[in-house]
Amino acid sequence: MTQDELKKMVGEKAATYVEDGMVVGLGTGSTVKFMVDALGKRVAEEGLKIIGVPTSDRTAAQGRQLNIPIKNVDEVDHIDLTIDGADQIDKNFQGIKGGGAAHLFEKIVAINSKRNIWIVDESKMAAKLGSFPLPLEVIPYGSQQLYKRLAAKQLNPNFRKQANGDLVQTDSKNYIIDLKLGTIDDPFGLADYLNRQVGVVEHGLFLNVVNTVIVGYGDGPKVLEAPERVTYQQTKEH
Amino acid sequence: MTQDELKKMVGEKAATYVEDGMVVGLGTGSTVKFMVDALGKRVAEEGLKIIGVPTSDRTAAQGRQLNIPIKNVDEVDHIDLTIDGADQIDKNFQGIKGGGAAHLFEKIVAINSKRNIWIVDESKMAAKLGSFPLPLEVIPYGSQQLYKRLAAKQLNPNFRKQANGDLVQTDSKNYIIDLKLGTIDDPFGLADYLNRQVGVVEHGLFLNVVNTVIVGYGDGPKVLEAPERVTYQQTKEH
Repeated sequence: MTQDELKKMVGEKAATYVEDGMVVGLGTGSTVKFMVDALGKRVAEEGLKIIGVPTSDRTAAQGRQLNIPIKNVDEVDHIDLTIDGADQIDKNFQGIKGGGAAHLFEKIVAINSKRNIWIVDESKMAAKLGSFPLPLEVIPYGSQQLYKRLAAKQLNPNFRKQANGDLVQTDSKNYIIDLKLGTIDDPFGLADYLNRQVGVVEHGLFLNVVNTVIVGYGDGPKVLEAPERVTYQQTKEH
Repeated sequence: MTQDELKKMVGEKAATYVEDGMVVGLGTGSTVKFMVDALGKRVAEEGLKIIGVPTSDRTAAQGRQLNIPIKNVDEVDHIDLTIDGADQIDKNFQGIKGGGAAHLFEKIVAINSKRNIWIVDESKMAAKLGSFPLPLEVIPYGSQQLYKRLAAKQLNPNFRKQANGDLVQTDSKNYIIDLKLGTIDDPFGLADYLNRQVGVVEHGLFLNVVNTVIVGYGDGPKVLEAPERVTYQQTKEH
């Protein structure tokens, strides 16, 4: 199976979790694109009635083209289910997102969702987080001083740059600093530390967020259910 | 003494703390304006050599007009001393700032300063914080959902509006939500909670930040020294 065939299979599998009447958070990325295509097909063929809440302009445009009604996160009362990708997932179902510089909006949609499904390929699964650099969205003002503090704390910060050397800017006009950590032994402790840093708008650790992971293996998609736990959404205060 | 005479006296007193060669954080507000005027006078008359790091365009403009060299927080190696106002200060020298919707940049300058002096009038001093509403700078995307979570937590949130009814926007194009709390019994616990909220860029609690408070009383300025403690700046990780 090619990589694209695998992504399509995972995306289509995820689309089967969507039920009539749901408000659905729509992530961003190549596997999510296949999922949104599959949802569009269900809307056209089954008359499935849903509202899509996109995490990017790209997904919003795709949804509209497929006749999926699109609303933003503040126009809906709640989100039933969000389907998104992830950059790394550990054996405890904790994740890193933000490789696409969109983890702030993705986290806002995720924590406002009753259920989260992540769709990934096998390469994203890891025993521990950290081999994927941890993205931080940071306020430009003071970001050089923040960088120095993160470096002094041995967090190996790197400003993310475009191909032309300019700093990457997020949709909120902030910068991205990637922490090249190798291994994250205590993701909760690190999240607490980063939450306290003035100038860090949001970090890419998604802890106790995902409920179900659909992984594309060579022989097809496998569904992994996270253990029952108090989720970010339930505590409303992580 | 009129209110303005009192503010001038406090501002001039604060300016005496600035020494030759210092990098000085310059806050914003009516009392700070008198302080910057006094610094400009020292630059002109004594040949005082300093660099000013302003927290607003207004203060930057005033500094330049007075021939105080101005740099932003990322252009200096460190800040020796920052002099700013505050909206409320409790008996433990903890404070609330953000009445001017600028607490994000003010906190970035403050935590990068070796020493902080706040200059206020008597009305800002309180046994406990909270009668002044606590400002939050929040990301617009998802802010209605955040508002609902804060309301459910009984934090009495209010979007700050301009006179024309539009939402106030900060220099970073974010919104301000004021929490009308009456009394804050546990400022550190509240700060921890707010630090964890996705979409809250920065709250207006300035805890373990100030070293010296200069208060304008009817009979003149009084200098209050905070007890020795581990400051925000020293821990680098609050």
